[in-house]
Amino acid sequence: MSADRAGQPITMRQVAEAAGVSIATVSYVVNDKKGARIGPEARQRVLDAVKELGFRPNALAKTLSSGSSNFIGLVADAIATTPFAGQIIHGAQDEAWKHGYVLLVANTEGDLAAEEAAISMMLEHKVRGILYSTWYHRAVTAPPALHETEYVLVDCFDTATPAPAVVPDEREGGNVATRLLLNAGHTRIAFVNTTTPSPARSGRLAGYRDALQGAGIAFDPTLVLDAAPEQEGGYAVAGRIRDLGVTGVFCHNDRVAMGLYDGLRELGLTIPNDIAVVGFDNQEVIAAHLRPPLSTVALPHYELGAAGVRVLLGLQEAPTGAPLAISCPPVPRASV
Amino acid sequence: MSADRAGQPITMRQVAEAAGVSIATVSYVVNDKKGARIGPEARQRVLDAVKELGFRPNALAKTLSSGSSNFIGLVADAIATTPFAGQIIHGAQDEAWKHGYVLLVANTEGDLAAEEAAISMMLEHKVRGILYSTWYHRAVTAPPALHETEYVLVDCFDTATPAPAVVPDEREGGNVATRLLLNAGHTRIAFVNTTTPSPARSGRLAGYRDALQGAGIAFDPTLVLDAAPEQEGGYAVAGRIRDLGVTGVFCHNDRVAMGLYDGLRELGLTIPNDIAVVGFDNQEVIAAHLRPPLSTVALPHYELGAAGVRVLLGLQEAPTGAPLAISCPPVPRASV
Repeated sequence: MSADRAGQPITMRQVAEAAGVSIATVSYVVNDKKGARIGPEARQRVLDAVKELGFRPNALAKTLSSGSSNFIGLVADAIATTPFAGQIIHGAQDEAWKHGYVLLVANTEGDLAAEEAAISMMLEHKVRGILYSTWYHRAVTAPPALHETEYVLVDCFDTATPAPAVVPDEREGGNVATRLLLNAGHTRIAFVNTTTPSPARSGRLAGYRDALQGAGIAFDPTLVLDAAPEQEGGYAVAGRIRDLGVTGVFCHNDRVAMGLYDGLRELGLTIPNDIAVVGFDNQEVIAAHLRPPLSTVALPHYELGAAGVRVLLGLQEAPTGAPLAISCPPVPRASV
Repeated sequence: MSADRAGQPITMRQVAEAAGVSIATVSYVVNDKKGARIGPEARQRVLDAVKELGFRPNALAKTLSSGSSNFIGLVADAIATTPFAGQIIHGAQDEAWKHGYVLLVANTEGDLAAEEAAISMMLEHKVRGILYSTWYHRAVTAPPALHETEYVLVDCFDTATPAPAVVPDEREGGNVATRLLLNAGHTRIAFVNTTTPSPARSGRLAGYRDALQGAGIAFDPTLVLDAAPEQEGGYAVAGRIRDLGVTGVFCHNDRVAMGLYDGLRELGLTIPNDIAVVGFDNQEVIAAHLRPPLSTVALPHYELGAAGVRVLLGLQEAPTGAPLAISCPPVPRASV
């Protein structure tokens, strides 16, 4: 049997109560999640409760036929115009499916009317909640209609609401990027930051300083340049980079690194022998295929989407008063 | 009023019948579609019928509350792992919304179980129909469950079913790409094709030959090279390209062109002065930012998604026995 006495489908909550564990633990066991640290005893109690109650781990068809809302909405400003945002969708969808939810995706291209219509549509479909996501990490003003349901901000945050938010850990990412250079023996390292004020700009700079401090190297503000955050910006600063006498450069993003490659090459410098270069974003189509392939730090888009769903469903806690920061892992290749 | 005597919302079909025109014509008038060739008289009859019947052009809220299915499903093998497929979603969603439909998106990463579950979910939600799409143009075997609803194949085709399909016009695209070079005065033009058998491989080659023939230039098979369809492939053939004595090169895609740029540069050749280069795909993050910016041909992903929805809704006809081929427009930049 897979329904309780009232004919309602068995929920993870009921399994959790019967087993005396958290819903998250049930979810981990039921979905055979790799890396979850759950003791063999708790695992067995969950499996026993699943069997006894007749809980169906593959909840999708079940939830669908139960008539209760099984939708999670994802409102995105620009799925389509960036090669990035797709991984947010991918992560959110995988995680939603795991828990028996279907992701309803609406791409608004930042148009307020489209956004309003999308949220209305989702509310009319009685979604379990909404992920409101942006294609790059930034401050937003959450649309008022969101307050009619539960929501999580993904890759963005709104200091005016207590709604949970999930963002990349820019500061740790900047630290990780700089350490890729430090660990290879570089001590005089430039940072080509972006001209655009943003959490990425301030966070990655703070991380660069953290890493230098951790290595006992004094911060030298003359080694920090600002450039337009794309190929043209990186190309334009190549001469200044050469003149700084640095042996390593951390670039705000992979596109800047791509332009810097061209600029350094025209100056007769080789990477990494003359100058080592590290990017940020891990924009696959660029980073993996430059000559030499670019060492970089990944923006955790998949994980942002997945964590957003877990926070929405109460399976993962977000700190109050600050966004949940997701790690940006290093992707070493051949440019250091 | 916006409901008929039985309390049902007024449909486009009823407006079409009252006005004596096709549903497509009603849709065009109601959505103020640019470029639709509709006479002033027919347009007026539609507007009169809309007014008389109380049809609400902004059908979304209407359809939502009517209880009838307002979903169109989109099953995609890889929205997330390619920077391309997103535009298919974007186009499909814009077009769906225009006609009062909401797009339900499922990304399957090509996993058969996920695909089956996604289609089941969509059928349970009584979707109006399903777009089954792939991230690159190829032959597929449509999953059997699709036959339980109407469906359109997008960026793929299945010779075993009479289902309509919408694909890029690879042959015309190859012709357009080659003409970018011919029109600039080049007469000895190489084609770096892909090693991977595909409609893109055969179609773009046929288009290259069409363009040469159109210009009265004999096809020379020694000018066609095969390379892995990414940067490394283009880089590897640079020496052979130089030795062929060509003044222009059409590359199978933008990634090949990017690698060829690096290879030609190392040989001391400049683009476009020594050799002109044309790509294919218009992969923005690459093509617009190479030095010099790459002239290329766009894959019409947005239009594939939009046309898929129009064919599904009967607003556009697809030929029987062959896919509907969508034009690939030229994107001239500075590499020719």
